[in-house]
Amino acid sequence: MTDPLRLGIAGLGTVGIGVVKIVQCQANMLAARTGRPIEIVAVSARSRDKDRGVSLSNYAWETDPVALAKRDDIDVFVELMGGSDGPAKDATEAALAAGKDVVTANKALLALHGQPLAEAAEAAERVLRFEAAVAGGIPVIKALTEGLAGNAMDRVMGVMNGTCNYILTRMDSAGLTYQEAFDEADGLGYLEADPNLDVGGIDAAHKLTLLAAIAFGTKGDFDAIDLEGIGAITIEDIRRAGDMGYKIKLLGVAQMTGRGLEQRMSPCLVPASSPLGQLEGGTNMVVLEGDAVGQIVLRGAGAGEGPTASAVMSDICDIARGIRVPTFGRAATALDAAPPASAASPARYYLRMDLTDKPGALAKVATVLGEAGISIDRMRQYDHPGANAPVLIVTHKTARPALDAALADLPGTHVLASDPVALRIEDV
Amino acid sequence: MTDPLRLGIAGLGTVGIGVVKIVQCQANMLAARTGRPIEIVAVSARSRDKDRGVSLSNYAWETDPVALAKRDDIDVFVELMGGSDGPAKDATEAALAAGKDVVTANKALLALHGQPLAEAAEAAERVLRFEAAVAGGIPVIKALTEGLAGNAMDRVMGVMNGTCNYILTRMDSAGLTYQEAFDEADGLGYLEADPNLDVGGIDAAHKLTLLAAIAFGTKGDFDAIDLEGIGAITIEDIRRAGDMGYKIKLLGVAQMTGRGLEQRMSPCLVPASSPLGQLEGGTNMVVLEGDAVGQIVLRGAGAGEGPTASAVMSDICDIARGIRVPTFGRAATALDAAPPASAASPARYYLRMDLTDKPGALAKVATVLGEAGISIDRMRQYDHPGANAPVLIVTHKTARPALDAALADLPGTHVLASDPVALRIEDV
Repeated sequence: MTDPLRLGIAGLGTVGIGVVKIVQCQANMLAARTGRPIEIVAVSARSRDKDRGVSLSNYAWETDPVALAKRDDIDVFVELMGGSDGPAKDATEAALAAGKDVVTANKALLALHGQPLAEAAEAAERVLRFEAAVAGGIPVIKALTEGLAGNAMDRVMGVMNGTCNYILTRMDSAGLTYQEAFDEADGLGYLEADPNLDVGGIDAAHKLTLLAAIAFGTKGDFDAIDLEGIGAITIEDIRRAGDMGYKIKLLGVAQMTGRGLEQRMSPCLVPASSPLGQLEGGTNMVVLEGDAVGQIVLRGAGAGEGPTASAVMSDICDIARGIRVPTFGRAATALDAAPPASAASPARYYLRMDLTDKPGALAKVATVLGEAGISIDRMRQYDHPGANAPVLIVTHKTARPALDAALADLPGTHVLASDPVALRIEDV
Repeated sequence: MTDPLRLGIAGLGTVGIGVVKIVQCQANMLAARTGRPIEIVAVSARSRDKDRGVSLSNYAWETDPVALAKRDDIDVFVELMGGSDGPAKDATEAALAAGKDVVTANKALLALHGQPLAEAAEAAERVLRFEAAVAGGIPVIKALTEGLAGNAMDRVMGVMNGTCNYILTRMDSAGLTYQEAFDEADGLGYLEADPNLDVGGIDAAHKLTLLAAIAFGTKGDFDAIDLEGIGAITIEDIRRAGDMGYKIKLLGVAQMTGRGLEQRMSPCLVPASSPLGQLEGGTNMVVLEGDAVGQIVLRGAGAGEGPTASAVMSDICDIARGIRVPTFGRAATALDAAPPASAASPARYYLRMDLTDKPGALAKVATVLGEAGISIDRMRQYDHPGANAPVLIVTHKTARPALDAALADLPGTHVLASDPVALRIEDV
């Protein structure tokens, strides 16, 4: 048996304790699989006295995660503190500078600072791995970086924020308003301290940034993501979309087009019968499309102690086995700066509007759409006890600028009772 | 740039040519990802003159795959000939003996001879990789061996023969008889030269053997699989199962139980709303269940040039990157011989029988089931214009020996118009 792999773990929250439990309980299995013992040497967290349900007495305690990261007696620094800046970033940089491999679950850190960190890892000839940062327990970083290494990737997509999918599923299945479903998720402890990280799509967009960098060999560019959260989705939209055979999902999409790299995180309609449409509750799903392999769909728990710890352990076992892959799947210095696409690729759109109940109202709307070059695939006007007529339109494939032009012109018809809702229909 | 990785490819059928195309067309991408050029040095196939649509003129030609396997100027022997014995086995053994890494898509070879081959690879300090052997383009070997390395696996399941799933889907959606769907699949070229490899479940059982060895750290034991093909499935069973909310799938299941390692490949009922139930046509799906990660579902194309070549390239890229993992995820000499489970774990069962239309017939059946200790969850008797009454029973969870006892006793009631059908309902 070769030398043990020695871990220093910073952050003893849910995920950190999950990792400690696996290392303690599965020592024999891990050694059999990786060919060497995996040991925890030192840990760090904010509070030393808290009862975490596992024994930490055999491990050295460091108050300062940077000091932990630099310890001579660790091989791998496991960063499970979170936060895009501050201690997590400082300690990660210190660990790489001290010649340690780093495993992190920190999507924000890597989405915002991944490029300099990957370059630092490369310069130090160390690895910086982050399987747990995207889609929890689903081994999607490995699938994309290694399992599909022979593919030029066409598109990567995913439902990668379980909280948003929980809220949308509860609105659909239990008829809750957005606020009711939000409050329910909050009561269950599903929301981040800053809920906008979830419902604003930011957390999921961090993950999309990382997938896009690997898929297309480009520098991560979080700011280039066309970002829209789920806060404006109403129960009415969910029901109307359902009538047309669709579900509404907070869907991240990255694809390389002739006009540049397109990255979107927004509520989209997907066919109810598709794997993405059938995804309910807090489960995550990632769809990887390559030129050789076609479409690969991966589904699993996107959060929680066990699933996230499983992903962290995957990176640790890789290091124990001597598996060393560059952070984003190729040399960090060889990653291209991808030009952001100027506009989203053409798509069909779902439009919902309330029209004042006057003769000719619908004709005026249709005229505006026609003048913008948008043709209508399906249209439904619903019964309306009130003064306004709910109208649903599914367009044929249309360019986003044409849609934006139409949306800008529609108020001029003076037949809209409220702002129209426009949602992209993603072909999945 | 370091030295190129030099390939010798034996077998230039669909998959072999797919690999040649990727190496030729994606040379820059592969070098950027793996850090070194990947080159084909020599090839071998039965016919040299056949037009395969790609240029092979830059590659040395070997008539004998064993000679190819031993060439001094190759690093990796890529075995894409197929067949569990004969040239594929001889050449793989020769390659390992000559100090070459081996990549193969050959499920039969590994299911029947994987243990000695893995030991030979280990003794020679070479790797023997087979991502393409299971579920085509789905990177399931990597997901299980590396991505879930931190999990004690509970169960692995899969629909891993696209031809069988195509036949069952067509029976369901188009109302075809088994023979009609079989003939349609045959006309489309979906069937192996020996169709029993597909419809008898043998091909899928080969794949299950490999997954079980990795999941449970046991020596592959194909002969221990409880094997049943789809030939006895009728359109009536598919319709009746559908009435009860189920689909019928040829499902492979391996799970470690207190009674030993249970391995089954048989037609099962799964909930129509589950990912497995929703899987249609030739697509494959593998479900991996671990103690930390919970359930991971992987879906993608199980066959075809691009998907299979993608999987072969994944192994080749791993070798180019210096990723070296034991064949079955741990030292071959450390794999245990798992005791086969004496009987399948308890499950609910679907029973269909035609009863002669006499008073008391159903009571006699219920009595036999009751005496065997089997309790009934749901029962339906259908309208019957003819003399016999179709009866469907879904049992509560029952041990397989109890079911077998009941099936043995039922003919003694003299109320059965034909042999009863019994299918397991798998909790997925």
